[in-house]
Amino acid sequence: MNIKSITYVLGWILKIEGAFMALPIAMAIVYGEAEGWAFVLTAALCFFVGTLLTGRKPRNPSFYAKEGFVATALGWIVMSVFGCLPFVMTGEIPHFVDALFETVSGFTTTGASIMPEVESMSRCSMSWRCFTHWIGGMGVLVFLLAVLPMVGGTNMHLMKAESPGPSVGKLVPKVRFTAQILYRLYIILTVIEFVLLLLGRMNPFEAMCTSFGTAGTGGFGVLNDSITSYSPYIQWVVAIFMILFGINFNVYFLIFMRRIGQALRCEEMRWYLIIIAAATGLIFFNIYDAAAGVEPTLRASLFQVASIITTTGFATCDFNLWPAFSKAILVLLMFIGACAGSTGGGLKVSRLVIAAKMMRRYLNAFLHPREVRRIKFEDKDVDAETISAISIYFIGVFVIFTSSVLVVALENKDLVTTFTAVATTFNNIGPGLEMVGPTANFGHFNALSKSVMIFDMLAGRLEVFPILMLLYPTMWKEAFKESARRRRKLAQKREGAKA
Amino acid sequence: MNIKSITYVLGWILKIEGAFMALPIAMAIVYGEAEGWAFVLTAALCFFVGTLLTGRKPRNPSFYAKEGFVATALGWIVMSVFGCLPFVMTGEIPHFVDALFETVSGFTTTGASIMPEVESMSRCSMSWRCFTHWIGGMGVLVFLLAVLPMVGGTNMHLMKAESPGPSVGKLVPKVRFTAQILYRLYIILTVIEFVLLLLGRMNPFEAMCTSFGTAGTGGFGVLNDSITSYSPYIQWVVAIFMILFGINFNVYFLIFMRRIGQALRCEEMRWYLIIIAAATGLIFFNIYDAAAGVEPTLRASLFQVASIITTTGFATCDFNLWPAFSKAILVLLMFIGACAGSTGGGLKVSRLVIAAKMMRRYLNAFLHPREVRRIKFEDKDVDAETISAISIYFIGVFVIFTSSVLVVALENKDLVTTFTAVATTFNNIGPGLEMVGPTANFGHFNALSKSVMIFDMLAGRLEVFPILMLLYPTMWKEAFKESARRRRKLAQKREGAKA
Repeated sequence: MNIKSITYVLGWILKIEGAFMALPIAMAIVYGEAEGWAFVLTAALCFFVGTLLTGRKPRNPSFYAKEGFVATALGWIVMSVFGCLPFVMTGEIPHFVDALFETVSGFTTTGASIMPEVESMSRCSMSWRCFTHWIGGMGVLVFLLAVLPMVGGTNMHLMKAESPGPSVGKLVPKVRFTAQILYRLYIILTVIEFVLLLLGRMNPFEAMCTSFGTAGTGGFGVLNDSITSYSPYIQWVVAIFMILFGINFNVYFLIFMRRIGQALRCEEMRWYLIIIAAATGLIFFNIYDAAAGVEPTLRASLFQVASIITTTGFATCDFNLWPAFSKAILVLLMFIGACAGSTGGGLKVSRLVIAAKMMRRYLNAFLHPREVRRIKFEDKDVDAETISAISIYFIGVFVIFTSSVLVVALENKDLVTTFTAVATTFNNIGPGLEMVGPTANFGHFNALSKSVMIFDMLAGRLEVFPILMLLYPTMWKEAFKESARRRRKLAQKREGAKA
Repeated sequence: MNIKSITYVLGWILKIEGAFMALPIAMAIVYGEAEGWAFVLTAALCFFVGTLLTGRKPRNPSFYAKEGFVATALGWIVMSVFGCLPFVMTGEIPHFVDALFETVSGFTTTGASIMPEVESMSRCSMSWRCFTHWIGGMGVLVFLLAVLPMVGGTNMHLMKAESPGPSVGKLVPKVRFTAQILYRLYIILTVIEFVLLLLGRMNPFEAMCTSFGTAGTGGFGVLNDSITSYSPYIQWVVAIFMILFGINFNVYFLIFMRRIGQALRCEEMRWYLIIIAAATGLIFFNIYDAAAGVEPTLRASLFQVASIITTTGFATCDFNLWPAFSKAILVLLMFIGACAGSTGGGLKVSRLVIAAKMMRRYLNAFLHPREVRRIKFEDKDVDAETISAISIYFIGVFVIFTSSVLVVALENKDLVTTFTAVATTFNNIGPGLEMVGPTANFGHFNALSKSVMIFDMLAGRLEVFPILMLLYPTMWKEAFKESARRRRKLAQKREGAKA
């Protein structure tokens, strides 16, 4: 285990987080809020600790898969711990576990909140809360790779560990340029939404925060009722942008390169849009009521479907009051999730499509025992490693999901609350049903349940393996053995030099 | 597709079913019930249709995997349709869908009932209802293989399609002798339980029915309150025998062959017993109340755990009233299920143990990229085919489970009822929670939901693939093409002979 490279990466993550705090500090200056000092102090702390950790560039910057996993998992934990300090300092979220829950929920773009009431929050804290969605959406390590001509080695492992989906493709041969292109597309799309919201006469602060929440597919709003009280125009804009941010960014890259035909042929995007259309249609007919009218019903169906499948979590109505069939569809969408390579969470459409193809191939093998068929996805053969990773991923999800439900069930809340609270945090969505429905919040859980959900949000955002690796005893045993061996060697060398 | 071989097997299944109806007919004679005529008529019908189908022995008796799947799936459907006729004829279950639900629930050893009240049923119908558990537990095709020196070909495919577990091992080189040994062990264990229940002063009829229900891990009882009103001695006997029938029958074969050491080393059995002990302990502490006393609480915990993990479904208390933590454990046990090669249902302990090992191997691959490690289970290497079959199995379960929940949700019952009704039928258990809890029944669902659950029970008992194969359009397309080609060839031959 290359521990020095890992701490070097952690140091840079902290420095970048400190730099990102310029936004809430600027907001504090604009609105003249004293809470800004909490951000100044935290940013200073981030730079101090970050500089300590990045003091010496590691001599051997090689980064293998396991280091990529460990650095990413630790990076997200460190980032969340420092990121929650301003909330504690300003007293807006006095308890540490609550503040950590809110920050992890922000960075992982979950959008589940412990706050019963957000409108009284200071503007600077509110902007930071929404900004964490934007940072976490595309990923802080991807940002790091984009800005820093970093450790020469195999940076791909960092990108792989942070980016969602069964297999991460580079857009261009260099990892650094891939990261830059992704962030450039991300900023362009965010700005377009911001402008369209301004055109709908939303005030600039709310438009900025809402754009952050949509772009990261997060879901923290600035109003207590989420998006419910905004105009139909704004609801349509947000719904469409949620869907856009749930599409694989490769598609935008292809459009950007004027390879439109190739972009439209994206298999995952087509399935994703088909699922959205089907779910919206089914819910539309299930909840349709002549008194409400066609447009509002269609808008409500599409908005909620888009919000859940992209794992954003905004709401324009209380879907907890919908009939069981519509609720069951939403629970199903919670697990499906958005496209790989987007900012959305969940299992990802591509994983499910490949899984369905695996099943078809399996049945076919009985009909034609001698024929060997390959699984094709996006016109390419899916390699055996990806197939086995997908199977293992499903098993990992099953294990984490069931054990989390068991621990949260200790609180003796009703099973739907327990079940959907875990589902919604693990899949980085936000609201669930019953006591965690769109009009409720997560404040009523005890510290143990909140800790489990913090774990689930991180495991969901980083797609299970980095976090499991961090909990894998063999990994630590071997890392300690290795560092002890190194220290012994170093000591022997010194002894040799003395003699 | 060898259609003649399949119809030949179907014919024999019907003849055997007719023979099995000797038991309810005997009961009708003993208790002097007029309802016995319904069984005489149905048995005659079974023999008639069976004889028509088995009239000509197929010239080419070869049986491949796909034929095994199709014959098994169709066999179970045919058997259930004929098996439910007596209930309709006697008017005890007037509606066909209800009667079919009850019979499928019996054969698949689910034990979910649509009857609000069973005690007023005629003795002959009641004995048939419980006997279906016993027939379905070990499997009618396994019985067929045991008694009939059948089609010379590869009978293993029939046995594989009907027997539960990720890989079916032959106890002895010949399939026929393996099937005979399994049925002999099954009968011996059932008789021992019957005698022990008689010693607890249960009346012979109830002891017989309860033994059938335990042996098949079915769950139909003869009293409305299941096992609640019986003595603690009887509850202990039933609990222990449920656990025994959930163990892989290989273990009993080894004990029978006096290879006790080898029997005790069975990895799956050890995990199965560890899970039972852990679940019982956790529930015991969760529901413990000093007023109730230690023995009754322990008995209640163990009985319910044994009943759910073996997917039997007997109950000695209303666990729907237990705290959420205990209920969450029961829901988890519903999916775990018993051992492969037992009469129990669910995912099976061995599948989960192998899945956990797959995950460990995956994480290890990151620590030691160059090392190739094999997965061992029961001291043997697990082959790649079994591993891929397990992954596909999980995907199949996920797909069937979620789509069933969606259709049943159309009824707009609460989500826990909907979810556990599907879980309990799919895993062949019996009772669920809320409106399908141990004191309730399935009569309140509409015909659509009941049909979905009939499908789920069959898919669960036959472990997904045979039933999926029956629904796979490509299979039918190719089968029809093949038979059309054959008919053309035959016609050409005739033309040739004429000319």
